[in-house]
Amino acid sequence: MIPNFIGEFDKEYLPKRTIEETYKITHFIVEKEKTARAFLKAIQHPTHQNDFVFVELDKHNNYVGFKLFFHEHIDKHSIGVLSEAGLPAIADPGSEVAKYAHTKGVPVVPLAGSSSLFLALMASGFNGQNFKFNGYLPLDTRERVKALKEMENRSRKASQIFMEAPYRNNPFLEFLIKNLQNDTKLCVAVDLEKEGKETIISKPVSQWKPREIELHKKPTIFIIEG
Amino acid sequence: MIPNFIGEFDKEYLPKRTIEETYKITHFIVEKEKTARAFLKAIQHPTHQNDFVFVELDKHNNYVGFKLFFHEHIDKHSIGVLSEAGLPAIADPGSEVAKYAHTKGVPVVPLAGSSSLFLALMASGFNGQNFKFNGYLPLDTRERVKALKEMENRSRKASQIFMEAPYRNNPFLEFLIKNLQNDTKLCVAVDLEKEGKETIISKPVSQWKPREIELHKKPTIFIIEG
Repeated sequence: MIPNFIGEFDKEYLPKRTIEETYKITHFIVEKEKTARAFLKAIQHPTHQNDFVFVELDKHNNYVGFKLFFHEHIDKHSIGVLSEAGLPAIADPGSEVAKYAHTKGVPVVPLAGSSSLFLALMASGFNGQNFKFNGYLPLDTRERVKALKEMENRSRKASQIFMEAPYRNNPFLEFLIKNLQNDTKLCVAVDLEKEGKETIISKPVSQWKPREIELHKKPTIFIIEG
Repeated sequence: MIPNFIGEFDKEYLPKRTIEETYKITHFIVEKEKTARAFLKAIQHPTHQNDFVFVELDKHNNYVGFKLFFHEHIDKHSIGVLSEAGLPAIADPGSEVAKYAHTKGVPVVPLAGSSSLFLALMASGFNGQNFKFNGYLPLDTRERVKALKEMENRSRKASQIFMEAPYRNNPFLEFLIKNLQNDTKLCVAVDLEKEGKETIISKPVSQWKPREIELHKKPTIFIIEG
């Protein structure tokens, strides 16, 4: 399980051990081949691009594609799993591969890297002894408000982490400010590990203004604490 | 917010950027000074040990100690936060400092490193789109069983991550096998980032045997998925 970059495309953001373990791998199950190739180039993988072997994760047919790939190569090669950004299998595809490997008795090795969820939580100042990652809220307005209120209730006991599709981030922040209680604390973490752009604001909803930070199409993590 | 090691005491397990940002810091709020010094030695911090300035996090008097330290130094120095292992403020002390910094308008910068929670979840093959970290279960037997059953119910929708005091890990595994349903999946991740010792087993409870893995005093993460 190989972490991809979340901000700068620069190998200094990854542990040397993660990079060196990845250098030993030439066969990959990936979210997208193009991004995977760019990642392997950025870490200066010693293998020539022509000699990499990829299969893309594909939900169709119960993931038959990666399973065939797995059986074709696992006897001779370690297989790397790479998602588009950050840690595979966490708020990202990849868990199907780990799950499958366990059922076949193949060891799964996680390599360390950056997770925007954890960087955001670490910097939020919120409860890190109990927390929940909720993924995306429902799209339907009524269900969305209901889900948010439920999260807000839970946030008294455990920090609640969630996301939005990046092109909807600005109206989403307005939605949060409008529907959360004034004394609920809201952390917004934007552009993590982007040099000079990383912004983390953490304060009560009453102090947030809808347009105080530009979030459009920027990777953003939202966290609340009651 | 500076990650400490979780396994090997070896700077190859940290991103170069994390190490270089830490090199710029000489003033630290830490869980324990002794461990912090060992960490700074292991990453070959260029500052002489005599020139570091530490304060230990101390719950007494509403954390008055670190707050005094903060105000004494923040105008002239960046202040690092270090816990005993892994990411500060996540399943570890440190969030009080981040929280305080936000209230004083001081930027909080999270540096990337290893989190045993995330490494375990990434390798478990379990749901990484929804998950919850629960910390420790209650000690009282009846409450403990109740808390476990509640987690098991929630684990159908979200992976449930939890821990035990390391010296109780062996009986805790027995407790889990006894009280969880046979088809609930249990992942046990032990000695993460310890060379040659790291073990991650992920399978249904029905396939677990109480003594199949030695956990006594070993750092262990438990995850269930319903």
